[in-house]
Amino acid sequence: MKKHNFSAGPCILPQEVFQKSAEAILDFNGMGLSILEISHRSKDFIAVMDEARAIVKRLMNLNDDYDVLFLGGGASLQFAMVPFNLMKENGKAAYLDSGNWAANAIKEAKKLGTVDVIGSSKEENYSFIPKIEEVGAEYDYFHCTSNNTIYGTQIKDFPKVNTLMVSDMSSDIFSRVIDYSKFDLIYAGAQKNMGPAGTTLVVVKKEILGKSGRIIPSYLDYAQHVAKESMFNTPPVFAVYASLLTLQWLENNGGIAAAEERNIAKAKLLYDEIDRNPLFECFCVPEDRSLMNVSFKITDESKKEAFDNAWKAAGINGLNGHRSLGGYRASLYNALPIESVQVLVDVMKSI
Amino acid sequence: MKKHNFSAGPCILPQEVFQKSAEAILDFNGMGLSILEISHRSKDFIAVMDEARAIVKRLMNLNDDYDVLFLGGGASLQFAMVPFNLMKENGKAAYLDSGNWAANAIKEAKKLGTVDVIGSSKEENYSFIPKIEEVGAEYDYFHCTSNNTIYGTQIKDFPKVNTLMVSDMSSDIFSRVIDYSKFDLIYAGAQKNMGPAGTTLVVVKKEILGKSGRIIPSYLDYAQHVAKESMFNTPPVFAVYASLLTLQWLENNGGIAAAEERNIAKAKLLYDEIDRNPLFECFCVPEDRSLMNVSFKITDESKKEAFDNAWKAAGINGLNGHRSLGGYRASLYNALPIESVQVLVDVMKSI
Repeated sequence: MKKHNFSAGPCILPQEVFQKSAEAILDFNGMGLSILEISHRSKDFIAVMDEARAIVKRLMNLNDDYDVLFLGGGASLQFAMVPFNLMKENGKAAYLDSGNWAANAIKEAKKLGTVDVIGSSKEENYSFIPKIEEVGAEYDYFHCTSNNTIYGTQIKDFPKVNTLMVSDMSSDIFSRVIDYSKFDLIYAGAQKNMGPAGTTLVVVKKEILGKSGRIIPSYLDYAQHVAKESMFNTPPVFAVYASLLTLQWLENNGGIAAAEERNIAKAKLLYDEIDRNPLFECFCVPEDRSLMNVSFKITDESKKEAFDNAWKAAGINGLNGHRSLGGYRASLYNALPIESVQVLVDVMKSI
Repeated sequence: MKKHNFSAGPCILPQEVFQKSAEAILDFNGMGLSILEISHRSKDFIAVMDEARAIVKRLMNLNDDYDVLFLGGGASLQFAMVPFNLMKENGKAAYLDSGNWAANAIKEAKKLGTVDVIGSSKEENYSFIPKIEEVGAEYDYFHCTSNNTIYGTQIKDFPKVNTLMVSDMSSDIFSRVIDYSKFDLIYAGAQKNMGPAGTTLVVVKKEILGKSGRIIPSYLDYAQHVAKESMFNTPPVFAVYASLLTLQWLENNGGIAAAEERNIAKAKLLYDEIDRNPLFECFCVPEDRSLMNVSFKITDESKKEAFDNAWKAAGINGLNGHRSLGGYRASLYNALPIESVQVLVDVMKSI
C-alpha cells in the first residue's frame, strides 16, 4: 500500500533519491565500491561535494561572495556556532523568539554574551510571528527562524535589518522564492527539504567571518570550513550525496520557483479544508500560516479516534503533532506530492 | 572484478552492511517507508538507537556506569568537547603527541587552558609512540590517540593514569581486546571499524561529567546528550543504522576477540612480507607497528611505476599513503578479508 508521509523531519524525499542512493550503496559510479567505503578525498566524492555546493548557489541565485558548507552536528550546533563567529566580545545580538527552536538558539547565544529578544510570541504559545519593522545597527547580528515547524508559522516579510542577517531556515529552505542575498548567514538541517538527517547546510557571506575576536574551536569556526572547501574533516559522506541527489531533483523540476508553486497549491488545498470543516482548526493565526507545516487540532474530541483510524487506514504516516503541542501536523515539504494532501483532505471530509 | 579496498577511512565495511542498508533505504522494517524518511522519534528508529548503544556496551564489556552516544561533527569536534567537559577553569591536561590527530587535539585543548605535552615523537616524524610510564593526578585528564593512521603506529601498553583517561580510538576501536573499563572517555569517528562517515561514537563514564565548571554550548555538553539518550537533537539516522549493522556483524562473528585474531593474522601476513622483501620498508619502528594501518615505502623508486600498475591491475583500491607522508598505506580494518591482504602480498612478491 502506498504511504503518504507527512513526517515533520526526517521526512519524505523524492523517490528517485531513495532509488539512486540505494544503488550508490551497492556500487557508486561503477567503481565496484560502495559510496560508504570510498575515501572522502577520492575524486568521485570531491565531485559530489563540489557539485552539491555549486547547485545550492545556483538554486539560491547567490554569487561568489557566498560559500556553501555541509557540516555535521545539526542546527543545534549552529545555535552555538553563530554567536562564536558573529558576536563580538562585549557585543550583543538581536533575536526573534518565534518558537521552540528560536528559543533554543537564544539560550545558546546567551552563553556567549548579550542577547536582546526584540520580539516574542512565547506568552501567546507562539501562535503568531512577532512583527518587527527594522533592526538597528547597534547589534552584531539579527537572528530569526524563518519557519516554525511545531506551531506552523512562517515569516512572510523579513524585517529591514541594518546589521548582519542570520536565519535558521531548517524547515523551509528551498521551498519559496526569497532574495537570499539579503542574508549574511543561512543554516538548515538537511532533514526537511534538502536530504536525510546527518548534515547541515551553511550558506555564508565570506566577508563577515573572522571578526568576532573570539577564540573559536576549529570545528565551530566557519572560516576553517570555508578554507578547506567543506572538507575540514571527514564530512558526512552519504548524507551529502543524498542531499546532492535531492538538490538535483529540485533543479530538474523547475528549481525553487516551481517548488513554491507546488507548495502553495498543496497548502491551499489543506488550509481550505481546515477553514471549511468545523471539525478542524489551526493553532496559529491565519496571516502567519506556514506553507510547510500545517499544525491543527480537532474540535470534537469524540471524533478523534475515528479520525485517527481513518488516516492510518488511508496509509498516512507522521500526522501526529509535536509532543509539546499535541494535535496534528501535516508537513508539506517539497517532496510530498499533492496527491498525498488530497488523500488527507478526503479523510478529513469523511469524518 | 572484485575490489580489494585498503582505504584508510571511510573504508571497507562488511558486504552484508551494504546489502542491508541499501534495502533499508528502499523499505525499512517493512514499513513501506525508507529509513531516510522516518522520524527519529519513531519506535522503529528508537529501537535502532537503543540497540546500537547496547551492543557497544556488550562488545566492550562495560557496565551501566558508562553511557554510549552517537554524535555528529566527527572526532574533530570531540577535540573541543573533551576540554570543554573535562578541563577545569584554571586546570590543566596532559596530552601525548603521537601523530597529526593527536596534535590537532592538543591545539584545540590549548584554546581552553593549559596543556602539558608529556611525550612527543614529532621531531622524529612520529615514527614511534612516546613511552610514558605514569600520568600524575595533578592533571584533569590524560589524552592519547590509541592508533595513528598516518604513520601506522599503535599504543600497545597504555600508561598507568592517576587521573581521568581519555582516548581517541577512531582508527582501532573494536579491533583488539582492551580493558575498556580503564578509560573514562573514549571517542571514535565511525568511519573505520564502526560504520560509514557521519557519526562519532562516544563512550563516557557518567560520573565524570558536569565537573569542569565551564559554560558549555549544549551540543558540546556530553551530559545533555546522556540525559536525552543520544537524541538531544536529530541524530545522523542513516549513519547510526549502518553502524548498528556493522556492530551486529562484529558480534555475530565472535566479537572483539575474534576480530583481534583475524587482525593479527592479516597484519602478520603483510609485515612478514615487508620484512622479507628488500623493496619495501615501514615508516615506523617495529615495536609500535599498528595492526590497523601498515604505512610503508618502496626502497627503489625505479620500481614504483611497476608496483603501482600491478596493485591497481589486481583490483586494489586506496593504497596510496596520506598526502602528508607519501608512500603507501594498507589499512587492515575489521571488515577487510585476509584474502585481500594475500592479493597485495602476491603483488609485492611479483615486483
